[in-house]
Amino acid sequence: MKLQIAIDLATTEKAVEMVSLIHDVIDIVEVGTPLIMREGMHPVRTLKAMFPGVTILADTKIVDGGDIEAGDAFDAGADIVTVLAVADDATLDAVVGAARKVGREVMADMICVPRQARRAADLDKMGIDYVCVHTGVDVQARGVSPLHDLDEVKGVLQKSKAAVAGGISMKTIQAVKIIGPDVVVAGGSLTRAADLRAAVIEMKNAIRN
Amino acid sequence: MKLQIAIDLATTEKAVEMVSLIHDVIDIVEVGTPLIMREGMHPVRTLKAMFPGVTILADTKIVDGGDIEAGDAFDAGADIVTVLAVADDATLDAVVGAARKVGREVMADMICVPRQARRAADLDKMGIDYVCVHTGVDVQARGVSPLHDLDEVKGVLQKSKAAVAGGISMKTIQAVKIIGPDVVVAGGSLTRAADLRAAVIEMKNAIRN
Repeated sequence: MKLQIAIDLATTEKAVEMVSLIHDVIDIVEVGTPLIMREGMHPVRTLKAMFPGVTILADTKIVDGGDIEAGDAFDAGADIVTVLAVADDATLDAVVGAARKVGREVMADMICVPRQARRAADLDKMGIDYVCVHTGVDVQARGVSPLHDLDEVKGVLQKSKAAVAGGISMKTIQAVKIIGPDVVVAGGSLTRAADLRAAVIEMKNAIRN
Repeated sequence: MKLQIAIDLATTEKAVEMVSLIHDVIDIVEVGTPLIMREGMHPVRTLKAMFPGVTILADTKIVDGGDIEAGDAFDAGADIVTVLAVADDATLDAVVGAARKVGREVMADMICVPRQARRAADLDKMGIDYVCVHTGVDVQARGVSPLHDLDEVKGVLQKSKAAVAGGISMKTIQAVKIIGPDVVVAGGSLTRAADLRAAVIEMKNAIRN
């Protein structure tokens, strides 16, 4: 299992500071949607320039204009871009096409998909690299967890890797580990830790053992 | 009917140049999603500072973190933000709440919504200001138009205004006019015109007469 840290509520400067503390122990650094909305591709470009060895995911949540939007993120240095699984197949195909052109990868975000297993099976056939079962922050607020859906989605994937996001912390990591996705995404439980590096190492150890 | 121009494929500098040509004849200037993904809120902030009298829509296509993402766009000077209609009701409520706090507005983008009329009726009850029937560029490529859905959606709206986007040009504007949405969104058919100001005035006249 790989660990992805979502950096949502930060400036580029703050993100650089955070990544400088963990670049050698984190698997994937996600430039979160709120940060992209505020600063565009600037944080992606800056992090890739400063930490060329780190895998950068741009949480673009593309829902249209797949070729152009994914192309822009790859141009900025993203190794992985995200597309919404609710997007039209034409958009998903365009994003996958843009990724293949430059040898990069695509994560489909399952947020707000009603029939998760059925859509995951489509995505698997379309060449999506990662299918991310994701309970958004607004939905987490009413106590929903992504784990039930993760189990179901993982069961239908043949080629795509499974990822999970939504309220993952040291409290829930053992339950996640039992299902065993390929990528675990954690945001606030890491970024709000008093000691970021220690929190990342603790979670890395938890998913490794 | 109001005319909204979508500025998608531009830099902030180019957007300023375009708006300087049309600020007195356009109703709503949309900072498009690809421009936000590239440059964040910088174009929104810049346009609002230079053209305080122009209504600026930030096409944020929010799907989670409604309060924070809408708040950031309003802070940058957006008069209207967009949220995806496929988002969870909690997200839509949060975006509407953020708008009410500052006396601004919300447009819900109906892209990729399966049962349009049913969802539009929900949005109407939730206090969404504009419901935008939208055929994305990737779907337009297979000849789909938003006009059939627009007619159906307009029929269920009680309080929300109707908007339409997706391939609108002088060729289709008469058909749009028969249905009569409150806002017509045009992108490439205006932004790619040899004479932008003339193209905007021509379309304004077409929807007025």
